[in-house]
Amino acid sequence: MIVVMKIDSGEKELNEILKRLTKEGFTGHLSRGVERTVIGVVGRTYPELRDMLELLPGVEEVIPITKPYKLSSREFQPQDTTIKVGDLNIGGEEVVVMAGPCAVETEEQVVETARAVKAAGANILRGGAFKPSTSPYSFRGLGEDGLKILARAREETGLPIITEVMTPQDVELVSGYADILQVGARNMQNFILLDEVGKARKPVMLKRGMSATIEEWLLSAEYILSQGNRQLMLCERGIRTFETYTRNTMDVSAIPIIEKLSHLPIIADPSHGTGKWHLVAPLALAAVAAGADGLMIEVHPSPDHALKDGAQSLTFENFQRLMAQVVAVAASVGRKIAGSAKG
Amino acid sequence: MIVVMKIDSGEKELNEILKRLTKEGFTGHLSRGVERTVIGVVGRTYPELRDMLELLPGVEEVIPITKPYKLSSREFQPQDTTIKVGDLNIGGEEVVVMAGPCAVETEEQVVETARAVKAAGANILRGGAFKPSTSPYSFRGLGEDGLKILARAREETGLPIITEVMTPQDVELVSGYADILQVGARNMQNFILLDEVGKARKPVMLKRGMSATIEEWLLSAEYILSQGNRQLMLCERGIRTFETYTRNTMDVSAIPIIEKLSHLPIIADPSHGTGKWHLVAPLALAAVAAGADGLMIEVHPSPDHALKDGAQSLTFENFQRLMAQVVAVAASVGRKIAGSAKG
Amino acid sequence: MIVVMKIDSGEKELNEILKRLTKEGFTGHLSRGVERTVIGVVGRTYPELRDMLELLPGVEEVIPITKPYKLSSREFQPQDTTIKVGDLNIGGEEVVVMAGPCAVETEEQVVETARAVKAAGANILRGGAFKPSTSPYSFRGLGEDGLKILARAREETGLPIITEVMTPQDVELVSGYADILQVGARNMQNFILLDEVGKARKPVMLKRGMSATIEEWLLSAEYILSQGNRQLMLCERGIRTFETYTRNTMDVSAIPIIEKLSHLPIIADPSHGTGKWHLVAPLALAAVAAGADGLMIEVHPSPDHALKDGAQSLTFENFQRLMAQVVAVAASVGRKIAGSAKG
Amino acid sequence: MIVVMKIDSGEKELNEILKRLTKEGFTGHLSRGVERTVIGVVGRTYPELRDMLELLPGVEEVIPITKPYKLSSREFQPQDTTIKVGDLNIGGEEVVVMAGPCAVETEEQVVETARAVKAAGANILRGGAFKPSTSPYSFRGLGEDGLKILARAREETGLPIITEVMTPQDVELVSGYADILQVGARNMQNFILLDEVGKARKPVMLKRGMSATIEEWLLSAEYILSQGNRQLMLCERGIRTFETYTRNTMDVSAIPIIEKLSHLPIIADPSHGTGKWHLVAPLALAAVAAGADGLMIEVHPSPDHALKDGAQSLTFENFQRLMAQVVAVAASVGRKIAGSAKG
Repeated sequence: MIVVMKIDSGEKELNEILKRLTKEGFTGHLSRGVERTVIGVVGRTYPELRDMLELLPGVEEVIPITKPYKLSSREFQPQDTTIKVGDLNIGGEEVVVMAGPCAVETEEQVVETARAVKAAGANILRGGAFKPSTSPYSFRGLGEDGLKILARAREETGLPIITEVMTPQDVELVSGYADILQVGARNMQNFILLDEVGKARKPVMLKRGMSATIEEWLLSAEYILSQGNRQLMLCERGIRTFETYTRNTMDVSAIPIIEKLSHLPIIADPSHGTGKWHLVAPLALAAVAAGADGLMIEVHPSPDHALKDGAQSLTFENFQRLMAQVVAVAASVGRKIAGSAKG
Repeated sequence: MIVVMKIDSGEKELNEILKRLTKEGFTGHLSRGVERTVIGVVGRTYPELRDMLELLPGVEEVIPITKPYKLSSREFQPQDTTIKVGDLNIGGEEVVVMAGPCAVETEEQVVETARAVKAAGANILRGGAFKPSTSPYSFRGLGEDGLKILARAREETGLPIITEVMTPQDVELVSGYADILQVGARNMQNFILLDEVGKARKPVMLKRGMSATIEEWLLSAEYILSQGNRQLMLCERGIRTFETYTRNTMDVSAIPIIEKLSHLPIIADPSHGTGKWHLVAPLALAAVAAGADGLMIEVHPSPDHALKDGAQSLTFENFQRLMAQVVAVAASVGRKIAGSAKG
Repeated sequence: MIVVMKIDSGEKELNEILKRLTKEGFTGHLSRGVERTVIGVVGRTYPELRDMLELLPGVEEVIPITKPYKLSSREFQPQDTTIKVGDLNIGGEEVVVMAGPCAVETEEQVVETARAVKAAGANILRGGAFKPSTSPYSFRGLGEDGLKILARAREETGLPIITEVMTPQDVELVSGYADILQVGARNMQNFILLDEVGKARKPVMLKRGMSATIEEWLLSAEYILSQGNRQLMLCERGIRTFETYTRNTMDVSAIPIIEKLSHLPIIADPSHGTGKWHLVAPLALAAVAAGADGLMIEVHPSPDHALKDGAQSLTFENFQRLMAQVVAVAASVGRKIAGSAKG
Repeated sequence: MIVVMKIDSGEKELNEILKRLTKEGFTGHLSRGVERTVIGVVGRTYPELRDMLELLPGVEEVIPITKPYKLSSREFQPQDTTIKVGDLNIGGEEVVVMAGPCAVETEEQVVETARAVKAAGANILRGGAFKPSTSPYSFRGLGEDGLKILARAREETGLPIITEVMTPQDVELVSGYADILQVGARNMQNFILLDEVGKARKPVMLKRGMSATIEEWLLSAEYILSQGNRQLMLCERGIRTFETYTRNTMDVSAIPIIEKLSHLPIIADPSHGTGKWHLVAPLALAAVAAGADGLMIEVHPSPDHALKDGAQSLTFENFQRLMAQVVAVAASVGRKIAGSAKG
């Protein structure tokens, strides 16, 4: 932490700050510049210290220089985290594809979709049984019945299941069915839920909040990791900007940034990332080209009859076409889709 | 809902859409313009219909024209909602002031602050026992012990208490102590929590999410109202923008907008809205001038020793000075601070 | 400037950086923390140095600690800048009110409006002769004819004129008519234009760009000041955020921030700041309560016939009503409207 | 345009609006829904009409349904625009690569870079002679001397030149040297400059403003096209969001969106789009995978000595490595880099 002094501050203020630092267990290291004096704070600092110091007389601003997250950083763990789900190795050399309907509606819908996406090359089945919905009057999911339907689709196809858990009380229930627990964008800072999935024995996929900085996202990851669950992957799903043509602006740069700052696998969700089915394919390819470890794609047997997010869902045919392109782009950057023959 | 057809669409597509509308129980009303044909959809539409129609061949876009919220709208209830808390009438002619520390730290800190803010003219004591924190390594609150301390401060001063509830399981516990339940910005779309406080018998204050549109905020209000709890007030606390000088950008325009669109009382929180103590006073005055029904202000006996958010907390002295100004500005717009002699 | 070293960097990298600093004419001042080593760069740094240093091996990041603007800062000039325009003192104790139509349409419209706003207490007439327009097919202003109309309205009413100049070539022309040159939001980083108004002998009002940070705004001010023109005032007119209900989100906090960081007067434009006439009054009052040195308000004899921005224009009657409220709020914060009897 | 009436509006208001529409030369087409009545406005509407109608009594809101841009839309011109620059066909099947230093510094620097990027496969040389700079104290370019240096590099290498023009007066001068005129992000709404390059006989590349919506960008394109210059390409270079890790957030989705809405070629600039050299390669590949017609990349012989934007510049070696990857990714989506053997 660096304390930057005001230009007109004097020795008295300086001494007060050094005294306070000593009192809090730190050492202050003075550096006098041409215009300003700065104090380097030596010791294991914490975020609140910044607020405290910034209030002291003579202080212009306080600049943190250590990252507030640790377990999720590449400095802490240089080698990539890989997560084993069945035969899959998420975060390894292969790119995994999760596909399925936004919401679980009927057994027929889910099983049919599971078969179709498997045939096209998907590795994991997605589907929401508990659905966050902006409006209380919209479809909110089938709950445990939905989980049972997903389990049946897994039996039929062998595809592992990823599904969202929305509240701490449901973590145990959802863990009983799911292979991967998903924490949605709106819950990225639902800290009690993060604690709870941090105690679960299942891999977790943490979506980025729609106005979360990369740093806040990694701090939310830290909640889960610090509870002991190291089977964690992240998912970029679009952020909120001023642009209104798309539902969200997919931040493709988050993919290489996460790869640089963290050892955690990074998945891309171009369905939520754009909100429009015709943008899903180009953004999926972009994500793979930028280094994503996986894709999450919404697929529905009949998008114009979907109970949720039809506008961003692919038909079976469009998904199949996309998979062929994904295989090719992955090959062009030296990767392959899990389970596929190399490009 | 208005279906806008593509310029190059023909009669066949038009007929398909009209057929589909009939099947879903709506009537389509055609209007042929110079460039485009549009179809007015007559019937009680719902959000998912938009997605469905937008996917049909020949459709350029679908524009909703009814607001998705109802119970929270002024069209539904033209007269202002007022909420009785002890002798106070929140949402009435008087402006209420909630003040206190960000986090409950010790009994002494809270009781001392409660006395000071009461003496300065505050009407309600704020203080967090359960604290959302971006980092798992920061102070997360005293929990039930914190609630007990707040209750003791209420005994001492007679000030009603507002405090945050972070997760559905805690609603009952927190309701046992609090006079007003606060739902924080990060939980504005924690829908299970909204359901739960919607069933509680206590007034609720719902903060705006940091990237929530006004419409989404009113939809979250709708969750609470539709569960039967009509004692609801809203709180503007700053939104996330590109500006980095402030922690958030306080959207003062949200105050008159809420007043126009909704009957719910609107409170302003310039402490979180700015993140810097020296901006709290000017933004508090701005909020009152713009028509806020109340203020929420962080006050701490010694901000540079606060365990949380010291940088945005006022000292007792600064709070006292602010209250005098607030009284004057309220008078200038024809209102008074609850409990004060009129400006 | 502070150079933060990577955790795994060693003495070799450190020495390279110190050598480079010496070569560029700076001294490096080492400070070894628990986790990281940082180097304080002593000397008159410049922005490009940051890029250069950040690219050197072993460097994690480089943090600037001096503000990049000087002439516009309060550190450089502690006392407020005041600008004399006729009898007015902009930036002094009194609050000035600029009012008039968005665009100059006809002599009748402008003179009628000038009389009405003067009668209601406005001090300066605004009106656009050169109009920036998002679409090439919209009204772009009357050009010099518009300037002549403004001059005639000044003759009639004695009100000084503020009007926009859009391009360097027009600075001389517009200076021949205007009392204050306005640089619009879209031109805040039209650097050649800034140079040119910096050489003009007229006061300038620089609007904030719609996605400009406070720092960038002050750097644009620096362009004008560094050319020698010190008669400069700033104008907050709303920034672009994700909210779509308003045209812009008016950043009321910018008012006290500018007052803290700079000595330049700060004007508020709630007409562009909100884009809706019914929000103009509450935001104008908020701006005055927050400490604005002036207001800029769009007024039109018949807003629903305006050629530009009718939706955000006040009628004469609404403007008159607003002025009474502005006088009262100004008084409540210890100020008066220029030319008015004190509250 | 659709006029949506308030729920409580009556026949009187309806008739007034219909009368007004007739007076302005439009026909109103009534459609009575369950909750609201809407009026379809038939005729060639214009943006200001919206403001006018929205102010009439009984009107809730007015929704435009025609796009405000015409010449730039795919509806107006279904086939792709291609622009011939020497042997290149920008906007055709091949992907073009523009590369070079941010700013022209010396002849040696530019010629050396031009040779290196040509050898690596670039098709066009970029370099700024007139440089927009946030600070007046930063390097602002060599002006005409810089243009001469670029011309000499063209002689040496045969590479056509793209360079920025910042102000209307310079259009003729810059046209005398450049093969493509670049309008920078900060000038996207410098309308006088747009007019002027619209009259030039050179191809133009229009960068997206950092807070411009897609629609505003296409309207700025419309300025240029409507002046008669149809040799226009667009360039996505990152938008401003709340994220601070990157200088801008590159909106990769803008690439397929522009391709859908417009016939104009779309170029991607990952150097400005990210602001960090280590993100340039992944975002360049992402852009090509998403369908970009070209890339613009900053390359410098010695980025840590660059006078401008060194942090986002690639070394020759890194650029060469990137080109090999770009060739592979382009091939994977069925395209090739201009001048290269197909992947």
